[in-house]
Amino acid sequence: MITLQVDLGERSYPIHIGPDLIGRAELVLSRLPGSQVLIVSNETVAPLYLDRVAAMFPDQQVDTVILPDGEEFKTLETTQRIFDALLAQRHNRTTTLVALGGGVVGDICGFAAACYQRGVAFIQVPTTLLAQVDSSVGGKTGVNHPLGKNMIGAFHQPRCVIIDTRTLDTLDDRQLSAGLAEVIKYGLIRDAGFFAWLEENLERLRARDQSALAEAIERSCRNKAEVVAADEYEAGCRALLNLGHTFGHAIEAGMGYGTWLHGEAVAAGMLLAADLSVRQGLLDPDAVARIRSLLERAGLPVRVPALMTVDRFLELMAVDKKVLDGRLRLVLLRAIGDAVVTSEVNPDHLVATIEAWRAA
Amino acid sequence: MITLQVDLGERSYPIHIGPDLIGRAELVLSRLPGSQVLIVSNETVAPLYLDRVAAMFPDQQVDTVILPDGEEFKTLETTQRIFDALLAQRHNRTTTLVALGGGVVGDICGFAAACYQRGVAFIQVPTTLLAQVDSSVGGKTGVNHPLGKNMIGAFHQPRCVIIDTRTLDTLDDRQLSAGLAEVIKYGLIRDAGFFAWLEENLERLRARDQSALAEAIERSCRNKAEVVAADEYEAGCRALLNLGHTFGHAIEAGMGYGTWLHGEAVAAGMLLAADLSVRQGLLDPDAVARIRSLLERAGLPVRVPALMTVDRFLELMAVDKKVLDGRLRLVLLRAIGDAVVTSEVNPDHLVATIEAWRAA
Repeated sequence: MITLQVDLGERSYPIHIGPDLIGRAELVLSRLPGSQVLIVSNETVAPLYLDRVAAMFPDQQVDTVILPDGEEFKTLETTQRIFDALLAQRHNRTTTLVALGGGVVGDICGFAAACYQRGVAFIQVPTTLLAQVDSSVGGKTGVNHPLGKNMIGAFHQPRCVIIDTRTLDTLDDRQLSAGLAEVIKYGLIRDAGFFAWLEENLERLRARDQSALAEAIERSCRNKAEVVAADEYEAGCRALLNLGHTFGHAIEAGMGYGTWLHGEAVAAGMLLAADLSVRQGLLDPDAVARIRSLLERAGLPVRVPALMTVDRFLELMAVDKKVLDGRLRLVLLRAIGDAVVTSEVNPDHLVATIEAWRAA
Repeated sequence: MITLQVDLGERSYPIHIGPDLIGRAELVLSRLPGSQVLIVSNETVAPLYLDRVAAMFPDQQVDTVILPDGEEFKTLETTQRIFDALLAQRHNRTTTLVALGGGVVGDICGFAAACYQRGVAFIQVPTTLLAQVDSSVGGKTGVNHPLGKNMIGAFHQPRCVIIDTRTLDTLDDRQLSAGLAEVIKYGLIRDAGFFAWLEENLERLRARDQSALAEAIERSCRNKAEVVAADEYEAGCRALLNLGHTFGHAIEAGMGYGTWLHGEAVAAGMLLAADLSVRQGLLDPDAVARIRSLLERAGLPVRVPALMTVDRFLELMAVDKKVLDGRLRLVLLRAIGDAVVTSEVNPDHLVATIEAWRAA
């Protein structure tokens, strides 16, 4: 087992990474402020792991909420179901919520923990690659609004993150690929060496080689933890983690949440960002070819859907959280491993980029 | 105009108190991070003050959301309406929400500000006595759940509080009395001199003497600001501000939100707390008589409704936010001006207190 630390002063917490961590009660029991636990999971993950997670809390009151599976359920209405369960079972402010599942479960459960009685503890047990390398670390929680992704939420750090790499054995191929999009992102924004390692090892990852997966997760979490420690509330460099996300969120919302997986939309979005970076004169065109090749090897889409017209993109991107006083801000690339936030985007270049990558 | 400061480091903010402050744009313009404003008000207050508040932002994008009036609308569903408006009008993370109204408007609007894009600025313009002396100061925001009051919320401090004492001219008598309950609370928990001053000046307050009201508001806000500065997240002494609130919240939820005003429920709740303090051997019985007399002079209820049986009280109090690991914690009095939080409540005393003050 490897343990990384997210350094946030009194809100610091460990990320444990390794096989068969679910069941190791000592990792979680010291993190509980009280004797009540509510496990939040979904219909896909609960049958696989819920019993083993619940058994980690032998002396606690353990209740469960099982949500439907899918991004389309990441809503305020679903969050209300968690509040209903917490109150019906009389959970008090020393309770601990446990998010057992992918990014959707983690985001909703974390948001419920942020708001219940104005904030209670929570623990992340991510079971998808995407959640393990990205969404479970850093304290961003929230739900979607029909007009925009993650528009309602809170910064609320977990008490610990338990990444059991064996859970990837049961993850379907499409979900594994979606997680690789966020893995590749770390290489692109700040770790050229990691990007090169991924070019060498991509097939091992898709074949679920445990040691390759563990290394990819560790290097991803290390990058994420460093960025979060430097800028918890996204006043600066944390925004770089959103490479591809402004385009990606527009695709997710525009196609209807759940149609494209988040990682798939981010993959196409990163390629759009790279293409735009070239048009803006920031990036060498050869880099786009390398990025495209790696995304394709990862089984990820590199075209945006034909339904996503330029007008639809611009409409949906206008509500992005990075918009400041009406100006669109985007993360672009100067090189593989070097990203920058800019509001100096030439609208003609933006339109040309979208047109260039739309499916016929 | 009097200006108090709530000292919370980088989250410090001013409370301005005085007549005709609505319209003084210089008080708010320096507090805006961007050029968008959403004013949240209700159907009662908006016709009186909305135009004048909107005119304080001549160079900003100003949108409005008008909510129905009443505690029964302090829900997650109502909050969703604010999110809908923010997104429909493309408000970005530099927007500022302005809460124009009583405690319900302030609590919902502050909670929406806490959650929109994971936190945006907001300004409190409280127009009821209760909101002016209590809920607008200190950053507690939230909404109710059918099973408990303020169960869903966040700590989110405003950028400033504008208390225009002229707004009390349009407040109905019942609302004024409800506000006096929270004013009296400050005397009870930590300011015996203020309690004595209230005994001297209660009739001037009910007659809306401007200078008496201004003094009561200033002394209340000063007490509140001191407590909040000492314990922003209610890890300790801030809990004393909840005197009467555990009983009061049970009355509000049990009778149906909006049936009893919050201040009315708190008044009856404070008397129950005082009575219980006597039974617990903490408080001189003469103090109960003084408290009862002052509450009655303020036009406040001193009996709990007959519908609120002992069993109903205990059921509703069991979900109170101050419950820790199954133990009820209550704020009790050792003297007028001296409160204490205790979990050492004799259940027989609690039952006797409720029975003693139930209406026939």
